[in-house]
Amino acid sequence: MALTKTPVKGMKDILPEEMAVRDYAIALIKETYKTFGFTPIETPCVEHIGNLTSKQGGENESLIYKIMKRGEKLSLEGVSSPDELADNGLRYDLTVSLCRFYANNLDKLPNPFKALQIGNVWRADKPQKGRYRQFTQCDIDVLGESSMLAEIELITATSTLLGKLGFSGFTVRLNHRRLLKAMALSCGFPQESSEKVFIILDKMDKIGPEGVSTELIAAGLPPGAVEDYMGFFRPRADESLLERCAEKLLHLSGQAGGGNDGGGSALAEEAAGAGETTDAGDTAGDAGEIAAAVEDIRTVMACIESVRESIPADFRLVFDPTLVRGMGYYTGPIFEISLKEFGSSVGGGGRYDRLVGSFTSLQAPACGFSIGFERIISVLMDKGFTVPSPEKKIAFLAEKGLDKEELCAMLLEAGRLRGEGQKVLVAAKSKNGKHQREQLEKDGYTEVRSFNHSR
Amino acid sequence: MALTKTPVKGMKDILPEEMAVRDYAIALIKETYKTFGFTPIETPCVEHIGNLTSKQGGENESLIYKIMKRGEKLSLEGVSSPDELADNGLRYDLTVSLCRFYANNLDKLPNPFKALQIGNVWRADKPQKGRYRQFTQCDIDVLGESSMLAEIELITATSTLLGKLGFSGFTVRLNHRRLLKAMALSCGFPQESSEKVFIILDKMDKIGPEGVSTELIAAGLPPGAVEDYMGFFRPRADESLLERCAEKLLHLSGQAGGGNDGGGSALAEEAAGAGETTDAGDTAGDAGEIAAAVEDIRTVMACIESVRESIPADFRLVFDPTLVRGMGYYTGPIFEISLKEFGSSVGGGGRYDRLVGSFTSLQAPACGFSIGFERIISVLMDKGFTVPSPEKKIAFLAEKGLDKEELCAMLLEAGRLRGEGQKVLVAAKSKNGKHQREQLEKDGYTEVRSFNHSR
Repeated sequence: MALTKTPVKGMKDILPEEMAVRDYAIALIKETYKTFGFTPIETPCVEHIGNLTSKQGGENESLIYKIMKRGEKLSLEGVSSPDELADNGLRYDLTVSLCRFYANNLDKLPNPFKALQIGNVWRADKPQKGRYRQFTQCDIDVLGESSMLAEIELITATSTLLGKLGFSGFTVRLNHRRLLKAMALSCGFPQESSEKVFIILDKMDKIGPEGVSTELIAAGLPPGAVEDYMGFFRPRADESLLERCAEKLLHLSGQAGGGNDGGGSALAEEAAGAGETTDAGDTAGDAGEIAAAVEDIRTVMACIESVRESIPADFRLVFDPTLVRGMGYYTGPIFEISLKEFGSSVGGGGRYDRLVGSFTSLQAPACGFSIGFERIISVLMDKGFTVPSPEKKIAFLAEKGLDKEELCAMLLEAGRLRGEGQKVLVAAKSKNGKHQREQLEKDGYTEVRSFNHSR
Repeated sequence: MALTKTPVKGMKDILPEEMAVRDYAIALIKETYKTFGFTPIETPCVEHIGNLTSKQGGENESLIYKIMKRGEKLSLEGVSSPDELADNGLRYDLTVSLCRFYANNLDKLPNPFKALQIGNVWRADKPQKGRYRQFTQCDIDVLGESSMLAEIELITATSTLLGKLGFSGFTVRLNHRRLLKAMALSCGFPQESSEKVFIILDKMDKIGPEGVSTELIAAGLPPGAVEDYMGFFRPRADESLLERCAEKLLHLSGQAGGGNDGGGSALAEEAAGAGETTDAGDTAGDAGEIAAAVEDIRTVMACIESVRESIPADFRLVFDPTLVRGMGYYTGPIFEISLKEFGSSVGGGGRYDRLVGSFTSLQAPACGFSIGFERIISVLMDKGFTVPSPEKKIAFLAEKGLDKEELCAMLLEAGRLRGEGQKVLVAAKSKNGKHQREQLEKDGYTEVRSFNHSR
């Protein structure tokens, strides 16, 4: 009855060496995020299939591991599609479950609620190097906070964490869904072309402005509008990308100025908060909303710059009008962190003020940041990172001939050292002593003591 | 499009208060077991359905969450049972996956290998108070160690852990599968009645010796043999249960003595190690094997008694000839820890020298101990246990009217305190200030600072 000794396709066993790095990173993540007031919570890995297939998850919904009904409910009778046999699935991210959790436990949670989740998610993706079908996600989210404090705290906390993990020289890119949409609409792109435009815009760092321009025209968008659109990404020498975007949008929407005089409240609530506007209702024309979005970005950038000295990492913070982020549920600022050691982003997030409302009549503002846990671990492993360990690791090797008293004396000494917090491995001495010693050294045991029969 | 806000049936959301206790317990478990040389590993939650339904898991195999095939492999055509649509399942324990892991990664692991696993398992059991369909297990196992050092280390480590978690007054009960079988056979019970006998014997602490005796006779076992059998559990005043068992078994098998003179090796390898005997071949008659099993129990008990001073808990260690343990895969010593605060056992385990062999041609001795993680957490929660926290928790509340400079100054101060390791929550001041303060106090924020617009 030979069973299968390899893991299921696309999943992996985690060996001691990698596990040590993961445990170290998780402890540092928890310790760091807790100083920012984030609180660990956990949701079940298994979720209602209806919650997972509600069109919030984009492409991920086609990658769900579906779980079969059980007992009497599981019957082939009258079934025309296998999907009818599934009642649950494994979650593909932590955000859907978080919103369900928040809606379900609202009366027991503080307001705002700052959640930290570290957990496994599953996607039946094509297996490829470094990408697995079970992987760990690490999310922080602020629920119930409509002001930009949420964005500021999320970005500050994550930058601090990356610094503590030894990363530096990364770039935090910031955009706003409302500006992203307004830029496309203001140039005269038809509203229904938005998704198409964003997919092309998202390639900016790969194909450059000429490439984007060419593809937009090839996709059937009017060349004049495309030329106008590209102007957003070409600031004058004395102008920042944010100024360029603000000026051009406010000019187009017929309102001059819109800058901040520095004396207003920095903690305005998001103008297009939960449910106040819908995607269909977005227009390029609302100058007030555009000015508010620009001001939000200014606030976030100024505040993060001002706390830079408390963040143990060297990083750039930029407004990037080409940042898109795939998930359709974002409603406000969006952000992403990139690092040259990584092929792509090391984390990202944004504001999603309408997702909680799909679970309950209550609308609640929400904003989250997810870091690429598996990528961080693989970069640390590739770097040859070893976990700092202050303790000495000692191995006690017992010869087979030891009598009971000798064995007890050895165990007592091991117990004494363990009581002091030292790590003591007790093992029978193997026949191939040299090989055993080499293995122990490789394993970090700096001291090996043999216990032999003395009589 | 209202989604479902409650968790799936039988599973639960873990709120911050419980999560803090769980995180504390997990950190203490890892810290303690690491001093004994155990190394954390992880296996996927998803396992081959064939590995889960190989008759090793007893009753648990009927409780598996089955996962459907995906893509082209998922078709109703020619399917006569829904089971044919499943290729994977969620693991119901950590032992099956551990053996698969060990067989798969043998060349990369030290020998012996001491594994620590903390992970979720799933069983579609009838939901009831305190029992959930997703729950965390915590196992330590020693693989590749045939001597009693494995049992000694497992029991010492787990007793130490329970002491550190604040438990005391527990009882470690010890038995040996070979003695358990020999006792039944030596009285003349037919071999095929063993399972029936053990199910009744297992009720000893509930129905007492008279109850067991009555049920055995009612089950059709010969009254004379039953009377003889009950003699194992009634030692003379000057006799321990282990002496009683040893003397009676060795007398019946025709060999006198068999005691240990104290000078022999305490680290003999398990006589009936991996694959050397099979269940079918067990007889009551092999006096050598019985003497070895008795000696094993003596060694384990003597060694644990000798290190008692290094274990921070008051506990009893007893030989209990009525201890059965359900799983069919045990081959040697078995053990269980009971505690009056718990309805039933707080953990248990034993030697399973043949399980690794079902994954690979290699036979490897193995022994494990699983603690009842969820029960420990629920007792701690019921006790009102709060996690010791040396840090001060400070809340910074920002008034909506703050301007950007004031907001930045507040964030900078928060960053400075966080850099010192303090926990600082930054939140917008809510309209109901009194309620917010009360909530923060309940949450452990001992200091609350308000930041108001000063101009």
